[in-house]
Amino acid sequence: MLEELKRRVYEANMMLPKYQLVTFTWGNASEIDSATGLVAIKPSGVPYDELSPEKMVLIDLQGNVVEGEYKPSSDMPTHIVLYKAFPEIGGIVHTHSPYATSWAQAGKSIPCYGTTHADYIYGEVPCVRNLTKNEIDEDYETNTGNVIVEEFRRFQKDVLSVPAVLCKNHGPFTWGKSSAEAVHNSVVLEECAKMAYRTELINPGVKEAPQELIEKHYMRKHGANAYYGQ
Amino acid sequence: MLEELKRRVYEANMMLPKYQLVTFTWGNASEIDSATGLVAIKPSGVPYDELSPEKMVLIDLQGNVVEGEYKPSSDMPTHIVLYKAFPEIGGIVHTHSPYATSWAQAGKSIPCYGTTHADYIYGEVPCVRNLTKNEIDEDYETNTGNVIVEEFRRFQKDVLSVPAVLCKNHGPFTWGKSSAEAVHNSVVLEECAKMAYRTELINPGVKEAPQELIEKHYMRKHGANAYYGQ
Amino acid sequence: MLEELKRRVYEANMMLPKYQLVTFTWGNASEIDSATGLVAIKPSGVPYDELSPEKMVLIDLQGNVVEGEYKPSSDMPTHIVLYKAFPEIGGIVHTHSPYATSWAQAGKSIPCYGTTHADYIYGEVPCVRNLTKNEIDEDYETNTGNVIVEEFRRFQKDVLSVPAVLCKNHGPFTWGKSSAEAVHNSVVLEECAKMAYRTELINPGVKEAPQELIEKHYMRKHGANAYYGQ
Amino acid sequence: MLEELKRRVYEANMMLPKYQLVTFTWGNASEIDSATGLVAIKPSGVPYDELSPEKMVLIDLQGNVVEGEYKPSSDMPTHIVLYKAFPEIGGIVHTHSPYATSWAQAGKSIPCYGTTHADYIYGEVPCVRNLTKNEIDEDYETNTGNVIVEEFRRFQKDVLSVPAVLCKNHGPFTWGKSSAEAVHNSVVLEECAKMAYRTELINPGVKEAPQELIEKHYMRKHGANAYYGQ
Repeated sequence: MLEELKRRVYEANMMLPKYQLVTFTWGNASEIDSATGLVAIKPSGVPYDELSPEKMVLIDLQGNVVEGEYKPSSDMPTHIVLYKAFPEIGGIVHTHSPYATSWAQAGKSIPCYGTTHADYIYGEVPCVRNLTKNEIDEDYETNTGNVIVEEFRRFQKDVLSVPAVLCKNHGPFTWGKSSAEAVHNSVVLEECAKMAYRTELINPGVKEAPQELIEKHYMRKHGANAYYGQ
Repeated sequence: MLEELKRRVYEANMMLPKYQLVTFTWGNASEIDSATGLVAIKPSGVPYDELSPEKMVLIDLQGNVVEGEYKPSSDMPTHIVLYKAFPEIGGIVHTHSPYATSWAQAGKSIPCYGTTHADYIYGEVPCVRNLTKNEIDEDYETNTGNVIVEEFRRFQKDVLSVPAVLCKNHGPFTWGKSSAEAVHNSVVLEECAKMAYRTELINPGVKEAPQELIEKHYMRKHGANAYYGQ
Repeated sequence: MLEELKRRVYEANMMLPKYQLVTFTWGNASEIDSATGLVAIKPSGVPYDELSPEKMVLIDLQGNVVEGEYKPSSDMPTHIVLYKAFPEIGGIVHTHSPYATSWAQAGKSIPCYGTTHADYIYGEVPCVRNLTKNEIDEDYETNTGNVIVEEFRRFQKDVLSVPAVLCKNHGPFTWGKSSAEAVHNSVVLEECAKMAYRTELINPGVKEAPQELIEKHYMRKHGANAYYGQ
Repeated sequence: MLEELKRRVYEANMMLPKYQLVTFTWGNASEIDSATGLVAIKPSGVPYDELSPEKMVLIDLQGNVVEGEYKPSSDMPTHIVLYKAFPEIGGIVHTHSPYATSWAQAGKSIPCYGTTHADYIYGEVPCVRNLTKNEIDEDYETNTGNVIVEEFRRFQKDVLSVPAVLCKNHGPFTWGKSSAEAVHNSVVLEECAKMAYRTELINPGVKEAPQELIEKHYMRKHGANAYYGQ
């Protein structure tokens, strides 16, 4: 079933080690088929060099395995919460990419210090709150998704304008219209996290980029008047 | 037309990922043909591994496409301003190379801390001011070039002695007598930005290199009495 | 003798340069055969690209060479002390991996700042005390092991829950049920050391991850109710 | 002449980009033939991938080219001063390797924080004083060597026990009994410079490693009672 979807999700997963975003099996990518509502996702704990399109696991939005010999990623419930809450999301990626994870461990949102960030992410990448002990004990992965949704709604953030989040003491999730776009945003996030880290060490009193510059760069690449690319 | 120029610009562009100065399509190189005043430049948003010499776009100094199937780099107007203001410049490169961009985001000029820097760049690499909201809204890329020109004139800096600039909250531009030399200066800049960053972390009270040492090293490689190389 | 053991230890050693944990010959891996109590270990000072399974040295737990043309790693007595004190350890790795060694040189234990760490290591990675002059002069490598054992017993740490240690002003040792698992833990340690370093630079006042999150992640991958992987 | 010497010097030079110690042509290695007093050295400004054993330049200790089509490295006079002052040195390397150069730019000696350093370098790597304007103007490269010699004599440092130096605002020189050993010491220096940098950022109040540990590790690898290796 959905061979094309599984192939795309396989390829998105293989991009993660290629872009040096994962060590061992510390990441996963998924994509939803809008027609059927089924999601293809990486199997749990399988090394990247043993993956193939057929090993991708198909699940429905209740988390049931519809097709596949393997157990899905243990982060699968987080993916499901995000797909359900934000129908505009087509693909999701989770990694422990080292710079973004360092910001998550520091418990700090990543400010928008320049146009590299503004080209793809509108404003800061939020670091959401820790889960409570109850949230962790009861349904950890589902509640990880719930906290992301809660924070995006509270701050009225648009998920396609801010396609990345940091889970405190854990690591990043990114998303996009497809799994390929979610991977792209993971690479962008890691690059921005790296440069924001160095920016603050070079100038501890640094301020965010001016709002008009953020606006300009985001709009060069997004919206009706975008003029970047072909 | 100008096949040799397009080949050189193609090769200069391909050096950018080779030297790890660009992620995705975040960079561009151009070169001007002094006889015709035409400029070959990378097409906008085309991945590096899909480039070929024929895909380079030829433009005139009014920004009109003279030859090519693709739209030129969105930073093209900045290149044009620099070629017009400084006829001694033959090639220009823009990247978001991570260390130089971190300095640009920090809003700080890169001091000359040693001979690696002094061998190629005479004195600090200036970080120019932010554009005003008007400058951004009216003609962002042209005004990016205008601000660079304004600052170089204000500080009476010679563009071939200081072949690099940081645009605040954005990233670096470098240049040289050819696109190959502009790429070379991008590599030098990134290396100097990296070492200056670490130099300040090792010794927060560090001073610039002594003027006589800067002078000596710059003159070993430049001017009538240069004696480096064959 | 024990060809399979020597092959596994050879492969574990070859993983160390592959994961960029060693420069030159600065590392060694060993594994114990539980049936015979014999240990296969890297020969001292032999470059990795000259290794082969046959060059692994077989030693007994008194440190006598039982088979092999080469002298064993000079750190062999440390390995022996650990195998004797902790029968649950099957493999040991020592490296000078740069981030973990920087923490060891700084004389600081690595706090658990997030789930990457908690997934594999329960609580901080301890930095044990310096050896006294007497301990160094009398039997340096044996006493290196003795100090590790002393500190793990004093803090009642379980070696399989905390499969890594920092020797002050020296570098890390890691272990596991096999040499392969010890290598895996060396990679994990280096990654956690890197992210902890950046975490503290991003937020100098950062606190350890909440206990309930550490608990949850460790138990996702370990113990009776583990549910990560296939 | 001296084909074997030129081959060894060629190979030493080629190790510099392999170990990522040089960008472009920013480095050079030489070795002296003790029988003839002739030195083989890299030609000035020739890219590494265009080098061959025949392109090495043979010079005498007065700095005259004895054989070779190319001009020798512009740092040749520094090499000569060191060979003349310290007959126990057989090979010399100069690079702008980024971590060691950052310490040189910061004007700080690299303290011995651990055994990685102590295994090869006895005590701190000294950062020598800046040259005066006169020293720079009169004979820069020769005086660079003179200042190194002056400082090693003043501190009664043995050049084979401390086979590395930082020239302030410039970069490192290393040496050894052969050009291969000098390259080895360049790699060691860069690794120690990197870890010392991180060590100080992790623990700003850190102290040098205890003297007895330094002594022990240096003596494990050097002197009559060395027992590391085969």
